[in-house]
Amino acid sequence: MRESETVTDTQQPTAGTPEGRPLADDEVARIDAWWRAANYLSVGQIYLMDNPLLREPLRPEHVKPRLLGHWGTTPGLNFIYAHLNRATMARDLDVMYVMGPGHGGPGPVAAAWLEGTYSEVYPQVSQDETGMRRLFTQFSFPGGIPSHVAPETPGSIHEGGELGYSLAHAYGAAFDNPDLLVAAVVGDGEAETGPLATSWHSTKFVDPRRDGAVLPILHLNGYKIASPTVLSRIDADELDGLLRGFGHTPYVVEGEGHAEMHQAFAAALDRCLDEIAAIQHRARSEGISERPRWPMLVLRSPKGWTGPAEVDGHPVEGSWRSHQVPFADARDDDAHRAVLEAWLRSYRPEELFADAGAPVPEIRDLHPGGERRMSANPHANGGRMPRDLRLPDFRDYAVPVEAPGTGAVESTRVLGTFLRDVMAANMTSFRMFAPDEHNSNRLGAVLEVTDRAWNARTVPGDDHLAADGRVMEVLSEHLCQGWLEGYLLTGRHGLFSCYEAFIHIVDSMFNQHAKWLKVTNDIEWRHPIPSLNYLLTSHVWRQDHNGFSHQDPGFIDHVVNKKAEVIRVYLPPDANTLLSVTDHCLRSRQYVNVIVAGKQPQLQYLSVDDAIVHCTKGIGIWEWASTDAGAEPDIVLGCAGDVPTMETLAAVELLRGWFADLRIRVVNVVDLMRLQDDREHPHGLSDREFDALFTTDKPVLFAYHGYPWLIHRLTYRRANHPNLHVRGYVEEGTTTTPFDMCVLNRVDRYNLAIAVLDAVPRLRDVSAHVREALKNKLIEHRQHIRTHGQDLPEIRDWQWSAEPGPDVRGDNEPLTEPSPS
Amino acid sequence: MRESETVTDTQQPTAGTPEGRPLADDEVARIDAWWRAANYLSVGQIYLMDNPLLREPLRPEHVKPRLLGHWGTTPGLNFIYAHLNRATMARDLDVMYVMGPGHGGPGPVAAAWLEGTYSEVYPQVSQDETGMRRLFTQFSFPGGIPSHVAPETPGSIHEGGELGYSLAHAYGAAFDNPDLLVAAVVGDGEAETGPLATSWHSTKFVDPRRDGAVLPILHLNGYKIASPTVLSRIDADELDGLLRGFGHTPYVVEGEGHAEMHQAFAAALDRCLDEIAAIQHRARSEGISERPRWPMLVLRSPKGWTGPAEVDGHPVEGSWRSHQVPFADARDDDAHRAVLEAWLRSYRPEELFADAGAPVPEIRDLHPGGERRMSANPHANGGRMPRDLRLPDFRDYAVPVEAPGTGAVESTRVLGTFLRDVMAANMTSFRMFAPDEHNSNRLGAVLEVTDRAWNARTVPGDDHLAADGRVMEVLSEHLCQGWLEGYLLTGRHGLFSCYEAFIHIVDSMFNQHAKWLKVTNDIEWRHPIPSLNYLLTSHVWRQDHNGFSHQDPGFIDHVVNKKAEVIRVYLPPDANTLLSVTDHCLRSRQYVNVIVAGKQPQLQYLSVDDAIVHCTKGIGIWEWASTDAGAEPDIVLGCAGDVPTMETLAAVELLRGWFADLRIRVVNVVDLMRLQDDREHPHGLSDREFDALFTTDKPVLFAYHGYPWLIHRLTYRRANHPNLHVRGYVEEGTTTTPFDMCVLNRVDRYNLAIAVLDAVPRLRDVSAHVREALKNKLIEHRQHIRTHGQDLPEIRDWQWSAEPGPDVRGDNEPLTEPSPS
Repeated sequence: MRESETVTDTQQPTAGTPEGRPLADDEVARIDAWWRAANYLSVGQIYLMDNPLLREPLRPEHVKPRLLGHWGTTPGLNFIYAHLNRATMARDLDVMYVMGPGHGGPGPVAAAWLEGTYSEVYPQVSQDETGMRRLFTQFSFPGGIPSHVAPETPGSIHEGGELGYSLAHAYGAAFDNPDLLVAAVVGDGEAETGPLATSWHSTKFVDPRRDGAVLPILHLNGYKIASPTVLSRIDADELDGLLRGFGHTPYVVEGEGHAEMHQAFAAALDRCLDEIAAIQHRARSEGISERPRWPMLVLRSPKGWTGPAEVDGHPVEGSWRSHQVPFADARDDDAHRAVLEAWLRSYRPEELFADAGAPVPEIRDLHPGGERRMSANPHANGGRMPRDLRLPDFRDYAVPVEAPGTGAVESTRVLGTFLRDVMAANMTSFRMFAPDEHNSNRLGAVLEVTDRAWNARTVPGDDHLAADGRVMEVLSEHLCQGWLEGYLLTGRHGLFSCYEAFIHIVDSMFNQHAKWLKVTNDIEWRHPIPSLNYLLTSHVWRQDHNGFSHQDPGFIDHVVNKKAEVIRVYLPPDANTLLSVTDHCLRSRQYVNVIVAGKQPQLQYLSVDDAIVHCTKGIGIWEWASTDAGAEPDIVLGCAGDVPTMETLAAVELLRGWFADLRIRVVNVVDLMRLQDDREHPHGLSDREFDALFTTDKPVLFAYHGYPWLIHRLTYRRANHPNLHVRGYVEEGTTTTPFDMCVLNRVDRYNLAIAVLDAVPRLRDVSAHVREALKNKLIEHRQHIRTHGQDLPEIRDWQWSAEPGPDVRGDNEPLTEPSPS
Repeated sequence: MRESETVTDTQQPTAGTPEGRPLADDEVARIDAWWRAANYLSVGQIYLMDNPLLREPLRPEHVKPRLLGHWGTTPGLNFIYAHLNRATMARDLDVMYVMGPGHGGPGPVAAAWLEGTYSEVYPQVSQDETGMRRLFTQFSFPGGIPSHVAPETPGSIHEGGELGYSLAHAYGAAFDNPDLLVAAVVGDGEAETGPLATSWHSTKFVDPRRDGAVLPILHLNGYKIASPTVLSRIDADELDGLLRGFGHTPYVVEGEGHAEMHQAFAAALDRCLDEIAAIQHRARSEGISERPRWPMLVLRSPKGWTGPAEVDGHPVEGSWRSHQVPFADARDDDAHRAVLEAWLRSYRPEELFADAGAPVPEIRDLHPGGERRMSANPHANGGRMPRDLRLPDFRDYAVPVEAPGTGAVESTRVLGTFLRDVMAANMTSFRMFAPDEHNSNRLGAVLEVTDRAWNARTVPGDDHLAADGRVMEVLSEHLCQGWLEGYLLTGRHGLFSCYEAFIHIVDSMFNQHAKWLKVTNDIEWRHPIPSLNYLLTSHVWRQDHNGFSHQDPGFIDHVVNKKAEVIRVYLPPDANTLLSVTDHCLRSRQYVNVIVAGKQPQLQYLSVDDAIVHCTKGIGIWEWASTDAGAEPDIVLGCAGDVPTMETLAAVELLRGWFADLRIRVVNVVDLMRLQDDREHPHGLSDREFDALFTTDKPVLFAYHGYPWLIHRLTYRRANHPNLHVRGYVEEGTTTTPFDMCVLNRVDRYNLAIAVLDAVPRLRDVSAHVREALKNKLIEHRQHIRTHGQDLPEIRDWQWSAEPGPDVRGDNEPLTEPSPS
């Protein structure tokens, strides 16, 4: 059989016949019996709540009153499962099964029950009639399990909810797992999604030497909910070209005859596994470095395969009508119930299950043992041995800070040196992901110890590309996120750096992952997995090109909507706090950590020891910047994040120059969730702690780069909330003023200072001339940038000074001296 | 030349040579001159703020102090522009230009200036030296224009921000524009995104008879910011297979020699245009219905083509270093400035621009006239004649409501009959979009007058597929959104129906579109375009399969973050209000309208006349459901959306049975933005109006299906906000209780009633037994659904009754009679 041949049992112009019929007749019979058992159990889950072994004729009360579930894709998933088991046993493989059409939840649940895993983790669902009844009843039932593949499903890392991420998850799982084979079923509906469509190109990012193999199985069953699927309706040459274009050698299996399909699929699967073994041998033993054309399977089978051919005169098997529950009213409609019973009996359950309800030995033995069972594969449960990262001491990477608020540094560049050594110490369990922004985010130091993963053609001038690179760069936030999720879900560690402007692209993926974490927290047998760490740079506040013109800082809002126990948001103002926060995040498990830190040069504030203290508290008064000297302040200036912190300090300096006795307290927030109530978030401050920082009655002005209402929402229960004024990002479309964004916007020193004049009662009557001077500065600066294209030098070069600062008087504006209060 | 041949000027194994050299030598010279002019103007925009014609040697003050922009992709965009102009003139075509690599903003701005369009819409940027200086200075400069293709760019419908949507926009523009050719440049970086990767399959959704043609031009310039691009580094056979797999016949143009590249590109473009003409002739004149293999171009050219070969010893042209500004410090670094001057002079500006600064006649005439200029194409400005939809009278589709709160109806099914006739009356200007959920969303009536668009193979049993179908179904929310945006931006109308659970997939696309609307509101020459209408069904609240298990109702929160002037959110509680709201949305322009309406059977409340009144007000007291009879209420029950409204009314009925004199006011909200302050949103209520509804001091309990803090945020300035308690969706991961979601959750009658007992002071001491009875009901219901798999009949069959309702006593729990207050 040549590569280009098609393994099939039907006559097709371009099709060949499989060279071999690898299965003995009794093997076909056994595999088919296992398949029938899995299908029987799947139909049972969708329809039945009693009489699980059909010991008596089906009566209305045996059928669930409300039917929910997806049959259409399930028999295909079961068919593949059976064949993967055969191959696993024959070759002693380590196989993980990722099911793109995760709505076929009954399938893997049935398989896990047949393999015994289900009863091991859920003892009440035992391998007997009682357990089978529970298995059926619990499915899509109050207090039971969801209809999709879910965290509750043993052997799965892939939520069967929103479609599109199966291949990305599969590759993420395969990275750095050289002995693992990830069989990934891609549904032909799912294949229409954008994320899946680009995931095929993962073939250029996998290293046959170091990484495991992914075996995609494109399952063409022809229909989505109601429409046909694109890939099932294009010409054979188009499909072949497409899959080869993705870097694969496709083998097509198609038809309906069960015995022939078993033979054809087994032959094609054997061929694929042989090729994978040969690829890995060439790469690992012969040292040949080439990008292989990885084999893959195309399974074309009827939707709702083995289901009723027709119900009420409409075709069901092979039709979109099989997508969910093929027919309703099976409880009270006698004809429908008869169809259901005939359908169930067509699997001949009496041959499949012993009297007590357990699978008969021929079936029970038709799967590998222990951790070789796909439903018990340890990779699918946080990895074989979820290990902590070996982390260097982040204090060794700290920048010296001679005086707070001086010495501008690109904080993420400092972080890059730490991450470089994190990478070097964890060369099989840590990866970094970025949509082609790794260096742009100033993390280039990492490339001193590894390369960008790249297994396609290279040319002179390329920068740090290698098949075994560990920095994953592709211009797809979806793929970055999906790979990373797969990597984390199999127990490894990673960090995703992205411009804040574009991270909304993965809002929906973040949702699913956060929910997965939340649910697994309550599933005893699930191991905790390393946290999903985002580093958001180029925050929208300071975006020249991207961001303000067409995006927003709302990802944090989106994150904070999730359950408090799984989300953390950090806004380190400088390099040393960024180091401390990142170290903390890399050690954590079961969280989504969002770190927001600009990549532009920023003033540095805290020595590393001070940074550790500050980050451990997560929030604190900066005494050195405050002028309240422990007394009751006139105003509290809160700030979070690098630019807002700088602008706040600059405002303090301005005001200090005018009003020598004004008592300002500066409170900096690193851990945003500290603002929330301790009854709402585990990091939340108690009311007493909050009040001690922000007072209960003094005005509070809070500078934040995102939407102001988020700060309000986090603090609305606090006693002093009525006095809180947040200066943040308010949606203003202005693509015409990219530079204005740099400094002159919501959170800026002059506006903040003016807001202080408004907020502090004792300044109101004495500050008219200060207000005028500040307003003039705003106008002067605006005029300056529109003429010269850059900020005024006093803005550009500003640093904090412990000395009483200069006031804002211009040469031409003699002003009265600051008034005493 | 056979289809499979490659048009190229370099030696490649699979390459042929173009059959012809279609250009005369002087034509090559003229096209090249135009290209040089566009490139000169592009470099000028990135670097210069004075001395635009290089009349004197370049001095530091002529160079911008801060350099921002993207050079790398720009010369390729200009090259294509020049050739499209030639073809447009030769064939009198109607061409729109969509630039996927929209960061190449200097290119189309330069072209628009050369074509005169720029000076027409921005007279101060005149076609002379002064105008050229302004053209240069304004680029990426405070008070100027953004560095990306933007709403300010004449001829563009495509924001050059987040990548991935160019092909989808192009197809959206081509739909129902039979005479339009949309040339769509796909960057090879962009091609890695998921949305773009699946957009290629649009070939199966375009009708050669009725729709215009899209000519994709895959621009392989090899690099993203730092990494190579996948498609530029796979083998030629893979790329060829891939593009053919997408349904195209690709023609490859590659090389560096300018003259040869002009010839090769012109030959290949001619070939493509010939094929498109032939395809359209076969479809339109010969009536042949087949899916054509649409031609497309692959242009392989160096990144930063025509730029400096080398700077500081590093290669620049053809390298990733060309991506943004190829070299910095051109102001103060004499060597760099010399490189810049040599680079600019290499275009020989003295040949291109006359003394006064205008393009010389040979160049000025090298574009078509009037609306044939791509920069002046009316399609790119809201369409040639943005027409209103012809709408039937929605009152004709209303359901009769005999008594409020009775007669459950699937509201979206009723809407479907209206939309059917909207479709029938607008068969060239209205389309509907759904990720395979059109029928699932109960909009199937529309298929009585049209079909699903489908131009791939069909088989018996397929349901309503036709090449000229107007219901666009593909399992990609990205593609649905992108097509619709393209359709709207060219002046037509549409509606996107989607499960609320999955609409987060397009968060980021929504962002860009909303920002586009906001910015175009301030651009005088831009015509208003029809609104982007979302119909979100299967709201998360009532999602059995999807939604609660892995998604959330946060899309509304995301929408409300946008500028108030462009967003509207509606929650019609029943069919007649849904009709009224949808009619309103379909008439509107320049908004994003979000309509949330469940597809399950729901009670009906308002006659169509009442619905019109209610929707016009957007919020109002439901007197018939209230018991305060115009007096001061004990409590206000607010509600928005179908399920929360039903549960609120059920709670009223329960309470009425217990407390005959309890004064409850029911306020229903259809237009969510009414809750906001009229200073924040144009639909907002004044404080006086708000207080009249919600009082200033009585407890308010608000039932909402989404995150409760959104309601708080909208109302936090209101006098009565301290007394507002919102019962909404709080993030609880619980895939184990899909059924519990249906009724027994946050917003439910028993919990609401208990909350009323808590909130109304005069009930506190007299309601202990009622509270117990309500809690028992909750437990009874939970037990019932876990046993029987469906709600208690009294829940399932509940309807509003104007009679005093039954109380909640069970047979076994005799209780004292309700206490008088």
